[in-house]
Amino acid sequence: MPHIPDIVIGRLPIYLRALNRMLEDEQEYTSSHELGERLGISSAQIRKDLSHFGEFGKQGTGYHVEYLADQVKQILHVDREWPMAVVGVGDLGHAIAHYKGFKARGFYVACLFDTDPDKIGEKLAELTVKSIEDMHDELQRLNVKVAMLAVPAKAAQNVANLLAQAGVRAILNYAPITLAVPPNVRVQYIDPVAHLQHMTFYLKP
Amino acid sequence: MPHIPDIVIGRLPIYLRALNRMLEDEQEYTSSHELGERLGISSAQIRKDLSHFGEFGKQGTGYHVEYLADQVKQILHVDREWPMAVVGVGDLGHAIAHYKGFKARGFYVACLFDTDPDKIGEKLAELTVKSIEDMHDELQRLNVKVAMLAVPAKAAQNVANLLAQAGVRAILNYAPITLAVPPNVRVQYIDPVAHLQHMTFYLKP
Repeated sequence: MPHIPDIVIGRLPIYLRALNRMLEDEQEYTSSHELGERLGISSAQIRKDLSHFGEFGKQGTGYHVEYLADQVKQILHVDREWPMAVVGVGDLGHAIAHYKGFKARGFYVACLFDTDPDKIGEKLAELTVKSIEDMHDELQRLNVKVAMLAVPAKAAQNVANLLAQAGVRAILNYAPITLAVPPNVRVQYIDPVAHLQHMTFYLKP
Repeated sequence: MPHIPDIVIGRLPIYLRALNRMLEDEQEYTSSHELGERLGISSAQIRKDLSHFGEFGKQGTGYHVEYLADQVKQILHVDREWPMAVVGVGDLGHAIAHYKGFKARGFYVACLFDTDPDKIGEKLAELTVKSIEDMHDELQRLNVKVAMLAVPAKAAQNVANLLAQAGVRAILNYAPITLAVPPNVRVQYIDPVAHLQHMTFYLKP
């Protein structure tokens, strides 16, 4: 596959989310126009993005929703379930562990870790919270490549180092800090306050 | 102020986050080079972004961290505290209500709402969960312009409509659905699974 801009890859999960909702509504066909309307993205952009990966639509009938969803799942490698580690089982870690929406979209929480002796051993969503000292072996045993980081900012870099050493290649970081990781590890960030601040720029004080 | 691309505005909270960490470390000066290294953004981009708003740095000494942080806070209108509503007090709503990181960055949770009679009346982070039926009046009484939406996907559009009617102008939506809102309302999305799927594209299955 030729080089595809990362920003295009970043839009595919959004397309997949819309397609999945259409499937729930038992909608059989859609168009780049309809997808664009729903997502606030131009139909030309959607056609261009998808054209990187093949010919999915037909002039006149548009896209077959289920077929396109299956193709996008394959492209994103979520036509399977990735085991995930969750590090940090405070309020946020609890919410993640209980979240029901992972399975249908290609993931499941396979293990939970914390440093707090009061939390280690706790039963949570049918898993037992383990010590970060056991993390390396557990991640290798379970072949975990994906982790969600829900620890305080001060601890995040150290945990990221341990995850990378244990073979994790994708980290979703909730700590409000930019992580330094080896080139073979990807990090994405979730910082709700950054999104809020982005919006208050436009609000009259 | 002339039109500034939204993508530039979206980077300002990231700069501010890095500046705040420097302040915590009592660092007095920084440079676009150092900021760029920390954030994985080119120094030219950072200088260009900031130049939309004025002249903040000096040749040779770079940026005064505290001054630049104060300026970016003013630009983003987070040199004050915005009262926020949280709608939906499941696991995620609990995590948001307990989160300690809002105040330092310009926000505080002012009210909590749910539809579940078992949750209405619950005490949470020194607030009482109220019924969505009381939401309109509460939001107007408290002059709430910002809301976080932590309800199931099926309920999200209806709640967004109610928020917009009550004067909310910025919604941070955790439900995995794209919302239709009036043109004077902004929405940002937090969809952890979309971020995970973005990364698994790059992983060998």
